[in-house]
Amino acid sequence: MSRHIPKDPAFAERTARSFAKQGLMETIGAELLRVEPGAVDIALPVTAKVSQQHGFVHAGAVSAIADSACGYAAMTLMPASAGVLTAEFKINLIAPAAGERLVAEGRVVKAGRMLTVAQAEVHAETAGSRKLVALLTATLVALEGREGISD
Amino acid sequence: MSRHIPKDPAFAERTARSFAKQGLMETIGAELLRVEPGAVDIALPVTAKVSQQHGFVHAGAVSAIADSACGYAAMTLMPASAGVLTAEFKINLIAPAAGERLVAEGRVVKAGRMLTVAQAEVHAETAGSRKLVALLTATLVALEGREGISD
Amino acid sequence: MSRHIPKDPAFAERTARSFAKQGLMETIGAELLRVEPGAVDIALPVTAKVSQQHGFVHAGAVSAIADSACGYAAMTLMPASAGVLTAEFKINLIAPAAGERLVAEGRVVKAGRMLTVAQAEVHAETAGSRKLVALLTATLVALEGREGISD
Amino acid sequence: MSRHIPKDPAFAERTARSFAKQGLMETIGAELLRVEPGAVDIALPVTAKVSQQHGFVHAGAVSAIADSACGYAAMTLMPASAGVLTAEFKINLIAPAAGERLVAEGRVVKAGRMLTVAQAEVHAETAGSRKLVALLTATLVALEGREGISD
Repeated sequence: MSRHIPKDPAFAERTARSFAKQGLMETIGAELLRVEPGAVDIALPVTAKVSQQHGFVHAGAVSAIADSACGYAAMTLMPASAGVLTAEFKINLIAPAAGERLVAEGRVVKAGRMLTVAQAEVHAETAGSRKLVALLTATLVALEGREGISD
Repeated sequence: MSRHIPKDPAFAERTARSFAKQGLMETIGAELLRVEPGAVDIALPVTAKVSQQHGFVHAGAVSAIADSACGYAAMTLMPASAGVLTAEFKINLIAPAAGERLVAEGRVVKAGRMLTVAQAEVHAETAGSRKLVALLTATLVALEGREGISD
Repeated sequence: MSRHIPKDPAFAERTARSFAKQGLMETIGAELLRVEPGAVDIALPVTAKVSQQHGFVHAGAVSAIADSACGYAAMTLMPASAGVLTAEFKINLIAPAAGERLVAEGRVVKAGRMLTVAQAEVHAETAGSRKLVALLTATLVALEGREGISD
Repeated sequence: MSRHIPKDPAFAERTARSFAKQGLMETIGAELLRVEPGAVDIALPVTAKVSQQHGFVHAGAVSAIADSACGYAAMTLMPASAGVLTAEFKINLIAPAAGERLVAEGRVVKAGRMLTVAQAEVHAETAGSRKLVALLTATLVALEGREGISD
């Protein structure tokens, strides 16, 4: 990830501040693990409050942390004045999301002026072992000068 | 939607029972609005607990209700013995999700023995007006005889 | 579709001219059927030259006409100076693509200044009957002032 | 890729035979470069017959080789009796597809009994240099005992 040069030297603080404003992350218990240029990891403890009907983590909660990981990975490479929005994402749920916690690793694939493509792998961790449970690919938009859109 | 014939006459009760087991739906405050053969609507009040950093509803929460609406729309057409899992979905976030509440309308496009394709539109409602904010397309899998997978 | 107002009154001629430049459309035998504001239909005769290994139309050829239908539907609403590029698309192949010909119907869902979301249904036609074989959702980008990108 | 064990020792011959039956691959000039368990590469010379209106390779042609690469990568791990179909795919077009030739590298991410998830990267090659132009993620279905579906 060292090939990515952040435009905003305060990218890590800006990411942490913005993450703290995401009500959904607090509601589901997600935590910001790592912030580097083009790379953001988010963890989610597996609890009943994020479950679907079989007791696995709901695809919506898996998507939430993977989407935030991609969005913030994109934001680390944007100028301080830009806000980031998700235009679209696609997720493949490869195995039931069970275990102790999930970790979504968002990585920038291509950072453009306007559009950024990022991918996230989500692994389930249990007693030290890891299993791939989901893959997400997202298109993020950098917005400048829109009222209400700054991170 | 009248062209869809449910295999399980108790599909509505089964859907309501399964929805009540989704911890995430309760956590974010989602509510089951409507259950018909091949069609399920889910509402989500817009509150700070499902927000992203600009105050809009987080894409993960939009996805959660749209995915559940598609999954349950698919389940209404499955035999009582089958459980439903999401294999993948793709969502386009067309406008910022703001307003009083979101309503996700899941509709079955093609119900196969093994795979079902469903789509959901998500509208934001404010003072009686509606605005399209997201489109989701999902592939759902019917699982029979898997331990722990029944709805 | 009448709610869409084209910015370029010559949108239909521009679309036809651009379509004629798509080498792939000629190679596979595709034909522009209909051009209206926000709506473009493209037909593809089912022949051995677009087949996959079982004799159905290859997903790549189905995608090609559905993507072009979406891209041109988007372009009908763009100013004459803009070029259109596909940022991403997702396609669900709902039934084997067989029959006499395929028709892809591209429709604009949301036309933004920068990004347009469009969807295409692809039907297989045989002896007057029609069957849905694929659904595609695309994000299109309007590009202005990029060298080599004008339609 | 060595972790993948093929169920059919003749997987490479079967893949080559099936590829030769894909009329679209011949029509666009695609070539099978490499077949290993869980990994298939396909090349496409950049010519006017696969172009879109700006002279780049049409997204449909990029998708065609990436989809075939994923489908055949999946098939290398299936029993000889199974046929493979694409249920859905999503492609992000990251940079204009220009150069001398494109190479799509399909890799199996998770091979299930029924569903396989695979991803393809597509690079454009020019005078020895390579550039990532597209990312595709696909869900493939293994079909047994369906008339007309064998590879």
